[in-house]
Amino acid sequence: MRIIKLQLPKLSYKIIVGRNITADLGKFISALNIGNYAYVITNSLIKRNCGYLVLRLLRKAGFQTRFFLVKDSEVSKSIVTVSSVIQDIALHDKKKRIFIIALGGGVIGDLSGFIASIYKRGIPYIQIPSTLLAQVDSSIGGKTAVDLAQGKNLVGAFYQPRLVLSDTKLLKTLSLRQVRSGLAEIIKYAAIKDAGLFHYLERHYKEILNLKPLALEFVVSRCSYIKARIVEKDEKEEKGIRTILNFGHTIGHAIEAAQSYQGYNHGEAVALGMLCASDIGVALRLTEQKTKDKLENLIKTVGLPTRINKIPLGKIIKAHFHDKKFIGERNRLVLIRDIGRTKIVNNISLDVIRQALGKRI
Amino acid sequence: MRIIKLQLPKLSYKIIVGRNITADLGKFISALNIGNYAYVITNSLIKRNCGYLVLRLLRKAGFQTRFFLVKDSEVSKSIVTVSSVIQDIALHDKKKRIFIIALGGGVIGDLSGFIASIYKRGIPYIQIPSTLLAQVDSSIGGKTAVDLAQGKNLVGAFYQPRLVLSDTKLLKTLSLRQVRSGLAEIIKYAAIKDAGLFHYLERHYKEILNLKPLALEFVVSRCSYIKARIVEKDEKEEKGIRTILNFGHTIGHAIEAAQSYQGYNHGEAVALGMLCASDIGVALRLTEQKTKDKLENLIKTVGLPTRINKIPLGKIIKAHFHDKKFIGERNRLVLIRDIGRTKIVNNISLDVIRQALGKRI
Repeated sequence: MRIIKLQLPKLSYKIIVGRNITADLGKFISALNIGNYAYVITNSLIKRNCGYLVLRLLRKAGFQTRFFLVKDSEVSKSIVTVSSVIQDIALHDKKKRIFIIALGGGVIGDLSGFIASIYKRGIPYIQIPSTLLAQVDSSIGGKTAVDLAQGKNLVGAFYQPRLVLSDTKLLKTLSLRQVRSGLAEIIKYAAIKDAGLFHYLERHYKEILNLKPLALEFVVSRCSYIKARIVEKDEKEEKGIRTILNFGHTIGHAIEAAQSYQGYNHGEAVALGMLCASDIGVALRLTEQKTKDKLENLIKTVGLPTRINKIPLGKIIKAHFHDKKFIGERNRLVLIRDIGRTKIVNNISLDVIRQALGKRI
Repeated sequence: MRIIKLQLPKLSYKIIVGRNITADLGKFISALNIGNYAYVITNSLIKRNCGYLVLRLLRKAGFQTRFFLVKDSEVSKSIVTVSSVIQDIALHDKKKRIFIIALGGGVIGDLSGFIASIYKRGIPYIQIPSTLLAQVDSSIGGKTAVDLAQGKNLVGAFYQPRLVLSDTKLLKTLSLRQVRSGLAEIIKYAAIKDAGLFHYLERHYKEILNLKPLALEFVVSRCSYIKARIVEKDEKEEKGIRTILNFGHTIGHAIEAAQSYQGYNHGEAVALGMLCASDIGVALRLTEQKTKDKLENLIKTVGLPTRINKIPLGKIIKAHFHDKKFIGERNRLVLIRDIGRTKIVNNISLDVIRQALGKRI
């Protein structure tokens, strides 16, 4: 078990990483003194896999509980779902101190965190991420959101959880494709901040794909550590520090949007986004060819895509310019100088972006 | 014109009070550098009264504009309205820097502030309050919210505006009853913090009821000053300092809820709530009889109610115990020791509350 502390001026919390740590759930939560009624938001699949265990452990520790099941899909990240969950909470929130547990992947984490942020202007919540992607990335740092028809994550809040419990045992039901998707984010952390981690991934990626406990515990805690240090310095993405976490994400989001979120999953799109950003870096003489090659080799080796299939360039470019990170007409991309070193570049010419993307299609 | 500054660690803003200051709207907003697209949320009545003027002034100052009209009623404070407004914003938010203007009373201010807080995890907004109640109270301090069927203001955020423009000229279309409702909040400020203001109100209340510009400017800026100082010390109501602003509100809310928000308006309910709190104070030997009498005389003199009509005691008590300020089974009331001095009291016995309310029915 490894414990990472995330310290902010107003609120600090622990990210606990380990195999089977859910068994001590009751103890961890009781120590926080955040309430006596655990309102668990999850989906039916996760409830079957580990929800009943969580329920038993919470009751054993003296908590009242209620489960709310949302659909296992991005459609759950909607204002409509927010509204139904929050009305259900209000209905059951009588003379109790209620807190929320987000038990699931990124969709459930983002949705639950947002609900916790707005109900009664903020109640405590806990993240128990059940995917590799959520464990290494979305469960940490308090970025919560739901989608609009006009774009993903357009409605949300910065609102920190009170605890993140990353139990690597929960990952055992993931498909290989889901594990790879998480691995894409892990490669991102290595590429922006940690050449050592990159080297580790080159040698040990198979252990991650095979869900070996020690490898998982190492990469999840390592990424949590990197993210915690970044979030501490720039909680609300105001100082350009947190921005580097978007490496691969700006173009990745454009790829996801261009295919209406069908086809490539988030990790796959991020992998492609990182490669396109490196191509742009090479074109701008910011990234060395061999750095790009190293990144491309790792992405290819772990089984993530390196070429964009069946999406017209025009569609990606159009989606790119609707990204919410655009301020006015200006674009902003995170590029890498070297493995572990980033550079934020503004106002890259559309021609350069178009050419870089064109080569991957 | 008077300017009050509200200074918070992360964001400071001005509250500008005066007659006809809307004329300089463009100048005030341009100075903030918050965007080029003003998205104005208001209702059709206010649009007729001053919306077209605001529109003209914004365009003259070079802003793009769009109006969104909501219903002139508490029903607009709903997740459904949030959803429609926010989708409309997303639809028009292309390559522009958008900010929100809340042009209206408390309903529009609370709704617009909440929308600003969650769209793209927060965009700037400005308050142009059009009622006396909103000018002295709800437009300041960043408490934003919408209602659920289970209770008022159950969904919201603490999110500060970038400017509050309180133009007393906008008050000229208010009914006498609406002015009195605002006066109830002004009496609250005097009762909790400012014996001088209380004395002023005793002598000059008629000037306020008759909307005399100098009297209005004085009381609006005085109350804004008091609220700003309190909010600065306890932005998120965590330290028990901001709590004193709830004087008259806990029981006031219960009265409003008991009659399903028909009948007494907010100011009238707050007036009754202040009197009940004073009755409780007298019963607990915290408030002197003559203090209560002074308060009751002023409330009566300005034409606000002093007796609760046609609401059964049981209903108020029941609503009282559903208030979101209740933590678990404990209650908390703001009482006054004297005009200008408060005392927060926890766990007042239900018998005392019941008896105090009973005398007013």
